[in-house]
Amino acid sequence: MTAGILGSIHSPADVHALSSQQLRDLCLEIRSTLLNYGRKHGGHIGSNLGVVELTVALHRVFGSPRDRFVFDVSHQSYVHKMLTGRAEAYLDESRFGEVTGFTNPLESEHDSFVLGHTGTSISLACGLAKTRDMQHTAAGASEIGNVIAIIGDGSLSSAIAFEGLNNAAEQGGNLIIVVNDNEMSIAEDFGGMYGNLARLRASNGTAELNLFKAFGLDYRYVEQGNDVDTLVAALEDLKDIDHPVVLHIHTTKGLGFSDETEAQDGSDGCNQTNPQPHAGQCEANHWQDPDSALGKPLDARKYYGQMAMASLESRFENEPGLVVISPATPGSNGITRDFRERAGSHYVDTGITEEHAAAFAAGIAKAGGRPVLATSATFFQRIYDQLQQELALNHVPATLLIFGAGISGADNTHSGTFDMTMFANTPDVACLAPTSGEQMLDMLAWATGPSDHGVTAIRMPGEQILAMERSADMAFDPAERADAHETTIDITGDCPFTRYQIVRPGREVAILGLGNTLPLAAEVAATLENDDDINATLIDAQQYSAMDGELLDVLADGHRVVVTLEDGQLEGGWGEKVTAFYANSTNPKAATVHALNFGASKEFTDRVPLAELDERYGLTVEAVADRIRRVLAR
Amino acid sequence: MTAGILGSIHSPADVHALSSQQLRDLCLEIRSTLLNYGRKHGGHIGSNLGVVELTVALHRVFGSPRDRFVFDVSHQSYVHKMLTGRAEAYLDESRFGEVTGFTNPLESEHDSFVLGHTGTSISLACGLAKTRDMQHTAAGASEIGNVIAIIGDGSLSSAIAFEGLNNAAEQGGNLIIVVNDNEMSIAEDFGGMYGNLARLRASNGTAELNLFKAFGLDYRYVEQGNDVDTLVAALEDLKDIDHPVVLHIHTTKGLGFSDETEAQDGSDGCNQTNPQPHAGQCEANHWQDPDSALGKPLDARKYYGQMAMASLESRFENEPGLVVISPATPGSNGITRDFRERAGSHYVDTGITEEHAAAFAAGIAKAGGRPVLATSATFFQRIYDQLQQELALNHVPATLLIFGAGISGADNTHSGTFDMTMFANTPDVACLAPTSGEQMLDMLAWATGPSDHGVTAIRMPGEQILAMERSADMAFDPAERADAHETTIDITGDCPFTRYQIVRPGREVAILGLGNTLPLAAEVAATLENDDDINATLIDAQQYSAMDGELLDVLADGHRVVVTLEDGQLEGGWGEKVTAFYANSTNPKAATVHALNFGASKEFTDRVPLAELDERYGLTVEAVADRIRRVLAR
Repeated sequence: MTAGILGSIHSPADVHALSSQQLRDLCLEIRSTLLNYGRKHGGHIGSNLGVVELTVALHRVFGSPRDRFVFDVSHQSYVHKMLTGRAEAYLDESRFGEVTGFTNPLESEHDSFVLGHTGTSISLACGLAKTRDMQHTAAGASEIGNVIAIIGDGSLSSAIAFEGLNNAAEQGGNLIIVVNDNEMSIAEDFGGMYGNLARLRASNGTAELNLFKAFGLDYRYVEQGNDVDTLVAALEDLKDIDHPVVLHIHTTKGLGFSDETEAQDGSDGCNQTNPQPHAGQCEANHWQDPDSALGKPLDARKYYGQMAMASLESRFENEPGLVVISPATPGSNGITRDFRERAGSHYVDTGITEEHAAAFAAGIAKAGGRPVLATSATFFQRIYDQLQQELALNHVPATLLIFGAGISGADNTHSGTFDMTMFANTPDVACLAPTSGEQMLDMLAWATGPSDHGVTAIRMPGEQILAMERSADMAFDPAERADAHETTIDITGDCPFTRYQIVRPGREVAILGLGNTLPLAAEVAATLENDDDINATLIDAQQYSAMDGELLDVLADGHRVVVTLEDGQLEGGWGEKVTAFYANSTNPKAATVHALNFGASKEFTDRVPLAELDERYGLTVEAVADRIRRVLAR
Repeated sequence: MTAGILGSIHSPADVHALSSQQLRDLCLEIRSTLLNYGRKHGGHIGSNLGVVELTVALHRVFGSPRDRFVFDVSHQSYVHKMLTGRAEAYLDESRFGEVTGFTNPLESEHDSFVLGHTGTSISLACGLAKTRDMQHTAAGASEIGNVIAIIGDGSLSSAIAFEGLNNAAEQGGNLIIVVNDNEMSIAEDFGGMYGNLARLRASNGTAELNLFKAFGLDYRYVEQGNDVDTLVAALEDLKDIDHPVVLHIHTTKGLGFSDETEAQDGSDGCNQTNPQPHAGQCEANHWQDPDSALGKPLDARKYYGQMAMASLESRFENEPGLVVISPATPGSNGITRDFRERAGSHYVDTGITEEHAAAFAAGIAKAGGRPVLATSATFFQRIYDQLQQELALNHVPATLLIFGAGISGADNTHSGTFDMTMFANTPDVACLAPTSGEQMLDMLAWATGPSDHGVTAIRMPGEQILAMERSADMAFDPAERADAHETTIDITGDCPFTRYQIVRPGREVAILGLGNTLPLAAEVAATLENDDDINATLIDAQQYSAMDGELLDVLADGHRVVVTLEDGQLEGGWGEKVTAFYANSTNPKAATVHALNFGASKEFTDRVPLAELDERYGLTVEAVADRIRRVLAR
């Protein structure tokens, strides 16, 4: 890259020292740096392109880290990172891996929090401001100055963001909430309040009807949200303000992208209500690394998501109550724009509002419908209470499709390791873990079928299952595959997936694979057969919400070792229950079974490669086989 | 009671048949029935007194169950129950136990959902309406008519309620949201939006600034929210409306209570911002059964809550960052009105906003403060995602005081059985279970102390511990006890509670009690000694977030049976981890240990007496001792 102004910015103090012209030049340089970085590395480029001038203005006017910025979700913090000593990580290709895609206090004193879930910035900022004000009252001073939350990009419609707005006014004291209004969420903006934002934009902020004022907050509007001089002036006005204020700025997501030729829409997240969106806007979720994306087959999320949607779509005409709900990010889960358009009212994007989506599903189901709620394992964490109260306790036939579940090299804010402890420990939820596309379709057919059952959670197959299917030439076009599949199970009766399935009978050792770990279980069995002459029993557990006590009792006869493998956290998970089942059994033979459990440790991991995690957790063929051998040798 | 109009109401059709005068008489009769019921039985009387006219008007205008009512939280559904075939359960003292305090479809076709947590009614109603509209489009008809959500009493400030408001306008179609504005939450109303509600009331609904309109919703206002004729007229206007509308009505909570002489404030939930509140308003949470409340000592929640608050209060002067946060319901947890007044800015009631409260705590802690967030086990479910992301992942020294945890005879919407699976399976949360008041104070002192640690969850002692302390004459005045206690632990270092404590050494059998189960563990040990001549080892586990592997290994030497007892759900809980620890240990002796686990089954229970649950789960002295004997006899 050029050795321009950006390369000379080592801290916010350097931004303070620039001339006005240099400030404008810096913005241009940052924009081209972002585009170059995005093309080569991928990332949340569109949202960062929209806040270039805002971020430069923030660092021009305020003094970080004394003044504290809280970037909501923090995927729009690249420019902030560039201005706080980390520019080289965006300028120098060899150093792209040095910073995370989110703020992180371990990286810089200028980052307030590790953040990756939406809507929490206002509440967090209230907390910072509260401590500051308490210190002021007690000691006349605090090391914290202005507190500034930066929120937008659809986050504002999150439950907790509203609670934050409602509490901010009441708290009083200095607090600046910058609402970055780019007219977009991740996919479509959803919700009545976006009408009010539009009205405020149209009236240059003067409309009497004002959501923020209705929450008791002071309010300012800046139409030129991508003009750094205007922003600097507006922020100068608000600096050291003695009460909470909303600064509503109108920005253009992806600004600068229109000059680019390589339009990308890896996430399929384009705004469908805008027929001719700005090319950079169309990049709504992530840019993928173009080299790796080029000609790349679908990943497991998209592949099985498309298969599931195809099987549901064929039923829409005859089943009015069949409704797919996606609390944003549909594209990542194979809910394509084409599908959404064809689905019409059978598809609802609720915006980034998981709690509402879950209770909404409960309502649909209670009225006789069959809702299918699809989102990531990590975002399902938001519905923990609704899962128990509105869904499970009300015994409604809602189907939850869990995407992105399992151990992975993801960052620590988007882990798929924790969902099983949440779902499996909630009463009256059938938790299913398919090990093939067809099994997933059968489970979906039953879960959305006519029988009188409660909530069903389907942990969508991961890359391990897709790789197995690809190697067996089964993974052809997902929609064709869904069309070709005919369910043979009885979808009108009780759950047909409660029994563990014996894939291959054997003796001495039983290996129980759950979901994504079935291929590993099969490999371990093969290794024991080849290397140790042990003919192990191989089992596909199918589900993780209830013990198959009958089969476990049968296994106690003739198997000294019973092994469980799961693609998630061991503590509170599935395997430990199998172990406890044997320990607490009144069957005397059960006491002779030695159970071994394999899964992830209880820990946060941040972008640790999957292979390294598998080694760490002993989730490799050799590690599992070795532990079995050691027990057999006792 | 009188055999008046109410006794002749067997279904909503009977309300339709009344004259206008009879309708008004019915309201008076219901009000006196509620007062009589409340004096004798207790319950959420204040909120029901406020909606007498609204509920009568709803059943006058609409035709339940074709028209669907969703009562938010549903603690204000007593009048609805009286009008839908269940009047005798309020009129006849011998039948008071026949209905629950919440709506329940198992009780009546007129009850849409089982509900006990706040803010979900709008989202649930959106779901009912969605299915209706889909059925209409497909078949030209639906069995569902109008859908009406009734929300108020502070619920409106819940995260999910805002998401519901924001989604309702977007959805379109018939949907009536009745906002019952009684100027109160459970304790204090909190939040900027209450200013807007006041402005709307003052302008008879005509103020331009209107929160509901800002969410894109149509809006009507009724000042006379306790006048049945006015309400009937307003609802007639809205019946069969073709789009979502908010009907904002101004009511008086506890109306009719002022004539009563027996003012009660069992919950200590009175509005402190109103120096002379209406006596019925002052009853803000529950009425207690006055006979049982009379001279009754404090329950465990209030007792240990008061002790904890007293110990914190003594530090406020010197520790500006020490802040107690209660997302409503402070009184139930011993956070008395007097304490709140003395605490000043060291106490924040955020309203019923658990998510905000958790992120707010993370912000306070990140800035160097020491937040203490106190609420019920069942309401902590709302912060599952914030616990993991904003709190644990950010490794901030926030303290969470979990009240009302443990197996109990509670209704199915307020169970204390599930919290351990939530807290213990989240990485980097120290989960402590004190077995005495002094131990709780030590844990609180460390958790809120200066050392560099992350989140601490303290499961406040339950009735079992308080009974044990009372029988030992230790349970004197909680504030005096807090003042008298001097911490001997080192609050500046690592967690001093990670090791299981040997209360009494023994052999052959080790009994590990966690928290509230320690008294049971001690009784089992005494029984084994007396009846079986077995000198069992008795252990106080102290914490449930990490195994004490060292001690468990030591126990493997000389103990054939290791028993775990926990006051919560077994699946995903603590004891199964102890069992899995032994199974997966590489210590050969560990394989000889037989572990037995005692705790609650994974199920919802609804007002089942505790003694019956203890029998069901084998959590009695004899059941535990018997299982130990059977294993020893093998």
